[in-house]
Amino acid sequence: MVRFEWVQFDGCDVTRHRSYPLDLIALRPDEAAPLHRQLSDQLRELILAGSIPAEGRLPSIRTFAGELAISRNTVITALDQLSAEGLLESRRGAGINVARVAGAARPRQGAGEDGPASIAPGLSSRGELMAAQPRVRTMPRRTAFHPGTPDLAQFPFKTWSRLLARHARFGAEDLFGYHYISGYPGLRRVIASFLTTMRRVRCTPEQIVVTTGGQAALDLLARVLLSDGDTVWMEEPGYPGARGAFLGAGARLAPLPVGRNGWQVPQEADPLPRLIYLTPSCQHPLGVTMPLEQRLAVLDIARAASAWVIEDDFDGEYTFRGKPLPAMQGVDDESRVIYVGTFSKTLFPAMRLGFIVFPGDLAERIKPAISVTGQFAPMLLQATLADFIEEGSFFLHLNRMRRLYGRRRDHFLRLMNEGLGAWLDPIDSRTGIQIAAPFRIPMNDRTVVAAAAGAGVNLAPLSLYYNQAPRQSGLMMGYAGVPESEMDRLFPVLRTILAASAGP
Amino acid sequence: MVRFEWVQFDGCDVTRHRSYPLDLIALRPDEAAPLHRQLSDQLRELILAGSIPAEGRLPSIRTFAGELAISRNTVITALDQLSAEGLLESRRGAGINVARVAGAARPRQGAGEDGPASIAPGLSSRGELMAAQPRVRTMPRRTAFHPGTPDLAQFPFKTWSRLLARHARFGAEDLFGYHYISGYPGLRRVIASFLTTMRRVRCTPEQIVVTTGGQAALDLLARVLLSDGDTVWMEEPGYPGARGAFLGAGARLAPLPVGRNGWQVPQEADPLPRLIYLTPSCQHPLGVTMPLEQRLAVLDIARAASAWVIEDDFDGEYTFRGKPLPAMQGVDDESRVIYVGTFSKTLFPAMRLGFIVFPGDLAERIKPAISVTGQFAPMLLQATLADFIEEGSFFLHLNRMRRLYGRRRDHFLRLMNEGLGAWLDPIDSRTGIQIAAPFRIPMNDRTVVAAAAGAGVNLAPLSLYYNQAPRQSGLMMGYAGVPESEMDRLFPVLRTILAASAGP
Repeated sequence: MVRFEWVQFDGCDVTRHRSYPLDLIALRPDEAAPLHRQLSDQLRELILAGSIPAEGRLPSIRTFAGELAISRNTVITALDQLSAEGLLESRRGAGINVARVAGAARPRQGAGEDGPASIAPGLSSRGELMAAQPRVRTMPRRTAFHPGTPDLAQFPFKTWSRLLARHARFGAEDLFGYHYISGYPGLRRVIASFLTTMRRVRCTPEQIVVTTGGQAALDLLARVLLSDGDTVWMEEPGYPGARGAFLGAGARLAPLPVGRNGWQVPQEADPLPRLIYLTPSCQHPLGVTMPLEQRLAVLDIARAASAWVIEDDFDGEYTFRGKPLPAMQGVDDESRVIYVGTFSKTLFPAMRLGFIVFPGDLAERIKPAISVTGQFAPMLLQATLADFIEEGSFFLHLNRMRRLYGRRRDHFLRLMNEGLGAWLDPIDSRTGIQIAAPFRIPMNDRTVVAAAAGAGVNLAPLSLYYNQAPRQSGLMMGYAGVPESEMDRLFPVLRTILAASAGP
Repeated sequence: MVRFEWVQFDGCDVTRHRSYPLDLIALRPDEAAPLHRQLSDQLRELILAGSIPAEGRLPSIRTFAGELAISRNTVITALDQLSAEGLLESRRGAGINVARVAGAARPRQGAGEDGPASIAPGLSSRGELMAAQPRVRTMPRRTAFHPGTPDLAQFPFKTWSRLLARHARFGAEDLFGYHYISGYPGLRRVIASFLTTMRRVRCTPEQIVVTTGGQAALDLLARVLLSDGDTVWMEEPGYPGARGAFLGAGARLAPLPVGRNGWQVPQEADPLPRLIYLTPSCQHPLGVTMPLEQRLAVLDIARAASAWVIEDDFDGEYTFRGKPLPAMQGVDDESRVIYVGTFSKTLFPAMRLGFIVFPGDLAERIKPAISVTGQFAPMLLQATLADFIEEGSFFLHLNRMRRLYGRRRDHFLRLMNEGLGAWLDPIDSRTGIQIAAPFRIPMNDRTVVAAAAGAGVNLAPLSLYYNQAPRQSGLMMGYAGVPESEMDRLFPVLRTILAASAGP
């Protein structure tokens, strides 16, 4: 039996009869993490917290195994890990010791999240502006009713995993090196192909740049297209992410009002826009689709102002009645529409893959600018996605989800109209996986959202999407990731919250 | 036998006796791509190019199979794919037709890379600046001697692939949704742990932000820390990516000269820096390590100027003689050093994972700014990397590579000194996977690099790393990804090129 040199067991938990520091270790065989990892994690914390001092000796492997009732191999695996990290040292004949470095490596007091907030130099004004942008908050493991969230569990992970494994083994150096700033050539090719056929976007693979998602695409465009003080016509209400990107690039925003009946396109290009931001397939947040005559009116304005148009087609794949309108990009004959797409809604958000279709040779010209941003999506995922689309799995999945989401949408709207119709007036558009529902009576949407969060329900306040008063109050809700049975369970909860918030 | 309704075979390749359009299809059983994909790819191109007109009927499946000598299932798989893409339609009793949309979807003339370069609105001045940044060019499949490239084939892809597969199957919603803007908690935890033990960085997981690589980290920092006109002290020579990020954020650069003997730290903070950029573990590009007294001198200057210090530790894991110096971040007691790291050199570049260690609560404060940039690395890869590190595979790999690269480095330097010593004077530092070799005699490094590229050898000109005259001319070469036998083969090629470039 090994003697513990630095401290003797002195605790009060006598029922376990374990020696220090083993009395501080609690392994749970029912947890997902393997026992050796639980052990190394807990030992690491004890060492870094100073609970086992530097150069103190550890119990023997046999003692570990006996007292914790685990195999010696498990102990060895855990201790090997800590040795590899430099936390432990074994000296011939002297057992296993905590390394000298470990004690010195303890995080200093107050350096963590509770530390002093006073950082000498501070952020730049741009940094402060970017850090002040509102964002839709999420609650992990609570999909209902977070806007814009697809049903993750429906994704064909088995197929995906098979395709991923094919590339994760080293085959071609170009999947693992520094090449292809604009994106993996095979992915750019299949994107060009399906945009051409499904969205009537006119493009070649050379016009496409793959990004780490739709937001990254907007941020890149804002930086390379906008100068300080440039005016951007921004949909009001509109997508907060786009607003943040334009403001971060120093732009001024001019509102382009949108309502249930579409966009109020002015007759004159005043104030003169440098860029016009649109979500014409499925307005973010209202869900309405831009009629052709409004699209042509915007293109006329853009021509008069010599402005760029960003067509953000973040959600246009989900159209539930009739056929989707072709993309504006295909209608534009002047190369001023830049098309942005994402796979966050059609696959899953954490995929972090989106793309830009640039006009002319702009994609090639801005390659060095992309280099500066470091915005390259991992080749492994790009190659896997190219396969997934080419094999047809992408379209199968998309079609399945269209049917599933169509049913859920109908159920969701029925429940809302039947149960919450006294307070909410949902906009029943034909596209998208989220629904905007303005309040029928004056209510504070942030209060309702906070109350819902307290009850474990994820909502977003509609007022968040407005940049200036008057802000329409209401709720933004995603329905796609929520099975009908869960909707049935949660709508009464919402009803109670709304009734309480509306007051007597 | 199906009649081809739109055109009859009229070619001159009578040896194959195939009917149009099947005579345009050439399948290669020896290629990696399966036959059905070769077929769908080639048919797609014919349709999109207008070679098979819209609404034209395709030959029967039996004809496809017979004339191309492939199975009917292969034909069906290929045609199903094109149907899913909307390019084909089958009408009951009328065979398979090219869809009407396909003809209209043809890319317009000149919209591709050969199209008109005149885009009406143009880039912003920031966009032009970012697009004008120099970058080290790469040649796919030619590792020798690209700077900064590890040996990709040595990576334990089997282990990686196994860990990846574990997560690629749907288990937890938080790997696939919108959460964790600052990075996957498990990864932030293991990064904090190994930085603490291996680099003596003082941090908690809450101080860490995971980025899509080191360049993305620098770009984010430049944007949130710098205002237009701020002065950045930039190493000269220095890392072009950092320079681009600072210039893109509107900063002015002041040179901080570096040579074989280290950094020439001035006595005075003049011009007053807002930020000082350093690569103290392994200077980029020269490879030298910053002595402790120079580090302390920089910290003094930073304190006097109330400036940030970025410590870019892009390559510090590879130290070949003696022990690495601890990170500057751990020496700083004022929370003004921001530490940046990357996994591009220790794993592989296309991984696109890096990180920032922020002081105090800054990581938490700038979360909304990260949201604006859209810079989130895919959770799947983050979770896999966390496992890879926790399991010990990361350290095993790193130690193996240290030994392998140490041998290659010795061989490389021996070959250089023996064979190229007349022209090159390599800086034999003790760290890093690239070597800077200034010319001994006046030569144009861009000419040499171009000649080497013509011979299939990847080099970078040392002058690229300088921001202003006088620019030291020489070569930057990576040795880590090149086996000794290939070095033996390529050094005579370089010798010939250098001899020719040096002139008589």
